[in-house]
Amino acid sequence: MLTRKIADSTVRRLAIYLRFLEEFERQGADTLSSEALAARAGTTSAQVRKDLSFFGSFGKRGLGYDVHALARQLRNILGLTRRYRVLLVGAGRLAGALTQYAEFGARGFDIVVVVDKDPAKIGMRWAELVIADVTDLENIVKRARIDIAILVTPAAPAQALVDRLVAAGVTAMLNFAPVQLHVPAGVDVKNVNLAVELETLSYAIQHRGSS
Amino acid sequence: MLTRKIADSTVRRLAIYLRFLEEFERQGADTLSSEALAARAGTTSAQVRKDLSFFGSFGKRGLGYDVHALARQLRNILGLTRRYRVLLVGAGRLAGALTQYAEFGARGFDIVVVVDKDPAKIGMRWAELVIADVTDLENIVKRARIDIAILVTPAAPAQALVDRLVAAGVTAMLNFAPVQLHVPAGVDVKNVNLAVELETLSYAIQHRGSS
Repeated sequence: MLTRKIADSTVRRLAIYLRFLEEFERQGADTLSSEALAARAGTTSAQVRKDLSFFGSFGKRGLGYDVHALARQLRNILGLTRRYRVLLVGAGRLAGALTQYAEFGARGFDIVVVVDKDPAKIGMRWAELVIADVTDLENIVKRARIDIAILVTPAAPAQALVDRLVAAGVTAMLNFAPVQLHVPAGVDVKNVNLAVELETLSYAIQHRGSS
Repeated sequence: MLTRKIADSTVRRLAIYLRFLEEFERQGADTLSSEALAARAGTTSAQVRKDLSFFGSFGKRGLGYDVHALARQLRNILGLTRRYRVLLVGAGRLAGALTQYAEFGARGFDIVVVVDKDPAKIGMRWAELVIADVTDLENIVKRARIDIAILVTPAAPAQALVDRLVAAGVTAMLNFAPVQLHVPAGVDVKNVNLAVELETLSYAIQHRGSS
């Protein structure tokens, strides 16, 4: 389908465009200009056209985009025409918050298992989830047909857990542990570091009025 | 100091480089090649050199980078030579998790106040924090000398809260609410959407073996 690698930043913008297209759909819009989509997403119409151009030709000159068709095509591109079974590794407070993050389910990501190593937590209920023993990780991954693992552990145990997940067949992971993970080719790991997000703000504060 | 706008993705990589430089420092390294830094950060040495070139000339051909000097310069560039006073807007589970996110404090970001509108939460203690009434938002921002606000609210109230924060003088915000916020020039908002992060994985799964 693709002939070149698309940057994560482009994929993120496509996901944002989809959200605004769905918002425009709910408001009853049928067509939309790249300018209107860009304004809503906080970018430029040139960027919108460039991002979409990677995936073929959308929209007609002078008529704008067909909102429904473009939303459908973005869902196809982003792999959002199916549901994903998600494993949470680590049952700390951030993991607890993630189980209540409504947008995951709304986009097709179902957290189906949580594992931890703490005997005090194993067996505890989080709404309809029961915290399972990380010792059984390999069996759980297979039995629950896990598509994506979310790592919400401290840095130290993360790599060993990832090695076990890879061996058990998990090929997509979202990593909140503050450590760079090593995985073989064919396995995708995306990192979320919330402190780094704050550092984009301290950078902005530091450089104000200087450019 | 700067003559051109640097992309967020570049700033994020600088923050990641700094983490690895500090790791190399702790291991006793004094010099480091761009190749070694790139390998650790999961990128290419060309990317490392390009990212650093925005900010002047670092390193000597054939000798690599001075680990201590480069770490110091990155802390300067990222604005990490001071501490920041952070306000959490919303006292839900994600906010609770953020108050325990040790890396914030380690990088100089101190959560000093949490506000909420729920009478059942106002007055509750979270470790050394007491949840304050969002009604007093403007006074709290001034009295606590807030540098950065983190929005951890549902989508609906977010814009009105941001308008109040801007009016109270807050110029830097990290937004977890799933909505695009409008702010005047001179105010920086960075968005974190955890579902979008999962969509970079569903995209990767969808496009495997196709490029």
